[in-house]
Amino acid sequence: MIDAEAIRSGNRLALSRALTAVENNTPDSKRLQAALFPFTGNAHLVGVTGAPGSGKSTLVNQLAKAFRQSSSNEKPPKIAIIAVDPTSPYSGGALLGDRIRMQDLAGDKGIFIRSMASRGALGGLAHSTAAFATLLDGAGFDVILIETVGAGQAEVDIARLAHTVIVVEAPGMGDDIQAIKAGILEIADILVVNKADRPEAENTARALNIMLEMSHGGINGAGKHFMRSLAEKKVNTEPSDKKPGWETPIRLVTAIEGSGIDTLVDDIRRHKAYLVSSDLWKVKEAFRLEKDLEALIKDKLLDQWQENLDEEKYQDLLAEILQRKRSPIEVLDLLL
Amino acid sequence: MIDAEAIRSGNRLALSRALTAVENNTPDSKRLQAALFPFTGNAHLVGVTGAPGSGKSTLVNQLAKAFRQSSSNEKPPKIAIIAVDPTSPYSGGALLGDRIRMQDLAGDKGIFIRSMASRGALGGLAHSTAAFATLLDGAGFDVILIETVGAGQAEVDIARLAHTVIVVEAPGMGDDIQAIKAGILEIADILVVNKADRPEAENTARALNIMLEMSHGGINGAGKHFMRSLAEKKVNTEPSDKKPGWETPIRLVTAIEGSGIDTLVDDIRRHKAYLVSSDLWKVKEAFRLEKDLEALIKDKLLDQWQENLDEEKYQDLLAEILQRKRSPIEVLDLLL
Repeated sequence: MIDAEAIRSGNRLALSRALTAVENNTPDSKRLQAALFPFTGNAHLVGVTGAPGSGKSTLVNQLAKAFRQSSSNEKPPKIAIIAVDPTSPYSGGALLGDRIRMQDLAGDKGIFIRSMASRGALGGLAHSTAAFATLLDGAGFDVILIETVGAGQAEVDIARLAHTVIVVEAPGMGDDIQAIKAGILEIADILVVNKADRPEAENTARALNIMLEMSHGGINGAGKHFMRSLAEKKVNTEPSDKKPGWETPIRLVTAIEGSGIDTLVDDIRRHKAYLVSSDLWKVKEAFRLEKDLEALIKDKLLDQWQENLDEEKYQDLLAEILQRKRSPIEVLDLLL
Repeated sequence: MIDAEAIRSGNRLALSRALTAVENNTPDSKRLQAALFPFTGNAHLVGVTGAPGSGKSTLVNQLAKAFRQSSSNEKPPKIAIIAVDPTSPYSGGALLGDRIRMQDLAGDKGIFIRSMASRGALGGLAHSTAAFATLLDGAGFDVILIETVGAGQAEVDIARLAHTVIVVEAPGMGDDIQAIKAGILEIADILVVNKADRPEAENTARALNIMLEMSHGGINGAGKHFMRSLAEKKVNTEPSDKKPGWETPIRLVTAIEGSGIDTLVDDIRRHKAYLVSSDLWKVKEAFRLEKDLEALIKDKLLDQWQENLDEEKYQDLLAEILQRKRSPIEVLDLLL
């Protein structure tokens, strides 16, 4: 039995065990999320996404260090790193990366690092990431850096979860990179061209800038995405004053040398201030929490239905599908 | 009203409209899937996955052409290409790629090409891809090549859907490429090192080979993944004879010049023969169809529940979540 109070008071072993409970989806996981939920709402969730090879991990490490060092006149913020590694859905292969990070950031008690390997469950990744964020937020972390590979569903999920999305590009990554940028511009609040010491870096930044300008004329970044989502979902939280005042910056960074990192930390803080002042912070929270609730409802409905299921009938109907005697859609009508 | 018979008899306009119905999730979509379902089960679903820049699109085009040309003594197979583009979740930016393909493959009535851009719906991509496969299978296509960006959930989805998974790597793509391979080896039935004219190609192939050998000792490729999934899900379809007899080949290919493509076509055919002879074909079908049914059930349950929902109560409880008065998990118990 993991103690929620221990997590609140900074016990790292309890926190680690709670996160493992989330990954394994044990009953403890739900209890702890409920217990810590009242203490959430403070953490700034920052998604860092980009293609493999863009140097996300190095960037995230440098950001964590910079956040810890940059607060001269106040207590340094507590930083958590969630490394979501959906590229190893089966092997949980993120552990090596963890060890390398641990060495680099070792000794700083204000930084907590945890990898999460998707277990291949449909929707499981998004769900676990959100639960991780709840526990870490409730445990008192001020900034939660969530590192994901930027492609497909992971991108959509991070745009939904994070307050601020940083998209990392590396110069000259491949020929169909242009196709990626189109989609990714809409979720980026801050664009980073990493490995800026490479000769093509300026060109990449220029290309991104042109694409950004073409997409102007409304709200940029995740704001745009959210406004559209809100319209679709008819979320009942209206921002009191829609200020489309965020200009997505494009930053040249060489993460491995630490150059450009301080500017990026300033951008992240500025973006939070912008979200809070424009009420988008509240809108995003509302959107995210409603999504969480919906996912919980869906799972519970299926559980309840399966409890009362005539298993024999289900297997018979399944066999008829395999024999192409009935389509899954027909069977659905017979089952429900 | 789209006519299922027209789709069966090769009317491409009807097929295109049916696929659009799937994307828009209209009632027509379900009716057509049900109508065509009895005619499915013939098509060989081949997933082609890899990072951006690995040259997947070129490879898929060359495979389509090679399949059409390689059957000397029989009618050439009908080929469909589904280009899933989850990297543009919002922009639907796959259209340009389509036009380039159309030019290359124009004039061959035995090849049908269709892009699908995810609309950002959770689980939507996997669902639509499966529905596309059902319609194309029912329409009489023999081989369905499904091109996806290889990362995260898309990978898991393609491993579930496809009979044969081809993983495409390009030499020297970036520093964290090693992290990818660990996860991707488990879903690969065939490994392709594309752009084999590059000097690093041999090294990449060698590295892949070492990793493959380290992971030996059981069933390779998607078989391994499926055996584990089957154990987890307790699917009641046992292969009559477990033959772990597939050696995942590693092929050096230069897709843009067409070199290595014929060998790859042979591999794909060999893999199908292996699946059929080992009963894994049936196991995969059973697994996939049960997943389809489960997804349908989940959606329907939510729909039914929402019909009887007290909207006012729901909104009140949602507000209490936003104010941190209740956790989503508490609210769940009050709602269900």
